Amino acid sequence: MKKRILITAGGTAEKIDQVRSITNHSTGKLGSFIADLFLKHDYQVDYVTTASALRPTAQINLTVEEITDTQQLDERLTFLLTKNRYDAVIHSMAVSDFTPVKSYTQKDFVEQINQHFLKSGLPLTEADLANMIETPVATTTSKISSNTDYLFLALKQTPKVIQKIKVLQPDTLLVSFKLLVDVPKAELLQVALASMQKNQGDFVLANDLTTIKGQAHTGYLLNKEGQIVGEAQTKEAIAQLITQTILNEGTKEV
Amino acid sequence: MKKRILITAGGTAEKIDQVRSITNHSTGKLGSFIADLFLKHDYQVDYVTTASALRPTAQINLTVEEITDTQQLDERLTFLLTKNRYDAVIHSMAVSDFTPVKSYTQKDFVEQINQHFLKSGLPLTEADLANMIETPVATTTSKISSNTDYLFLALKQTPKVIQKIKVLQPDTLLVSFKLLVDVPKAELLQVALASMQKNQGDFVLANDLTTIKGQAHTGYLLNKEGQIVGEAQTKEAIAQLITQTILNEGTKEV
Repeated sequence: MKKRILITAGGTAEKIDQVRSITNHSTGKLGSFIADLFLKHDYQVDYVTTASALRPTAQINLTVEEITDTQQLDERLTFLLTKNRYDAVIHSMAVSDFTPVKSYTQKDFVEQINQHFLKSGLPLTEADLANMIETPVATTTSKISSNTDYLFLALKQTPKVIQKIKVLQPDTLLVSFKLLVDVPKAELLQVALASMQKNQGDFVLANDLTTIKGQAHTGYLLNKEGQIVGEAQTKEAIAQLITQTILNEGTKEV
Repeated sequence: MKKRILITAGGTAEKIDQVRSITNHSTGKLGSFIADLFLKHDYQVDYVTTASALRPTAQINLTVEEITDTQQLDERLTFLLTKNRYDAVIHSMAVSDFTPVKSYTQKDFVEQINQHFLKSGLPLTEADLANMIETPVATTTSKISSNTDYLFLALKQTPKVIQKIKVLQPDTLLVSFKLLVDVPKAELLQVALASMQKNQGDFVLANDLTTIKGQAHTGYLLNKEGQIVGEAQTKEAIAQLITQTILNEGTKEV
């Protein structure tokens, strides 16, 4: 039976209102390279990406699905992982950790907080604040008024989509990504390892934004045991490293 | 002497941290159509746009400059309007009204607010809140930690770049845009007129997001007196309407 892989790439965008979003930067280039390599190796590739991200060049045995926000990503991946059996899942999409819940003008925000003070006379607690944010409001603004010096945006954590992957498909090989910004290598590797373990991943590609520039892109591929199975200095080389590692695992299984 | 026009198109992106931005949606398609029409009429076109926006198809007599956020837009327009004399400025770029100043975890935010409350025993004022936001912090996070249920983003108003245009070049013809979401036509026209007058504009294109879909795009072009000088139902037709109106004004002047 034809081998099948699920690849995510690009960056999500969480709506603030009808005309504004919080976007996670990602060109999707690395994901498109990985997809093209697996297509060369005759895999069926299911590619989940975002509107502005780059696409794989090859077309045969490729299905592309577009999502916008984490909610849609969650629904899409749950559907695909329930419907198809994947030999591997490579989750390279930059997924927003937070999504906007409410926005307040300076005036509204002060009023909201003072309501609590005046009622209870007590300092604010984290629970008070959470409660204030989660309390539904009657009117929803389709476009935020700019008639305030300051605007307050309350965001809440998005569901960790990646943690569902192994739950829905325990036997698939999961490659996750960890991007940090300007940290020592030791810290990068340790944080990447911890995130892989939390997601029950099999491999994690650890990279630091400060090493990504044009063609240059330093990446360390770690296995479950935290060993560096490979290191690469360009997007092409990282794609090769990940692809070859998955292919080797595949043959091991046989 | 060759006629010269400055056109802005696309949407700005304001950095939250190294990997996230607040973006204003805009394909830049309408601006690119307008630019192509003025190039056909042998204008020199200075085109200020953003990375992901569409470009004009014609190339001769066109200079394209790319900006990312409102700060860069401000600097770029100030430079161009000081350096060159423009017969007209068409400001179709979707410019962010707010830019992130600080982000707080749930815990940090509650602490900050309570510090004030416990010190003074008084309710919070808008000034207190503004002061809290504007007080510089020693550590700046290059990537926001996701280790909090809620995140608070404090944003401040960006400088109104459009209001500088007529100050720097009183004799140019300024066409501004006003986009609202799902309001009655009368309200749309009234708000658009008010914004044009505030910016000392000569014309304003009033449009409502709910009428923009694929090729369909309803726009009303208002003059200083608030009269509708034209109405169009597609991006192409809006571009034609704006271009023809500016060309007519140009000949009037002669």
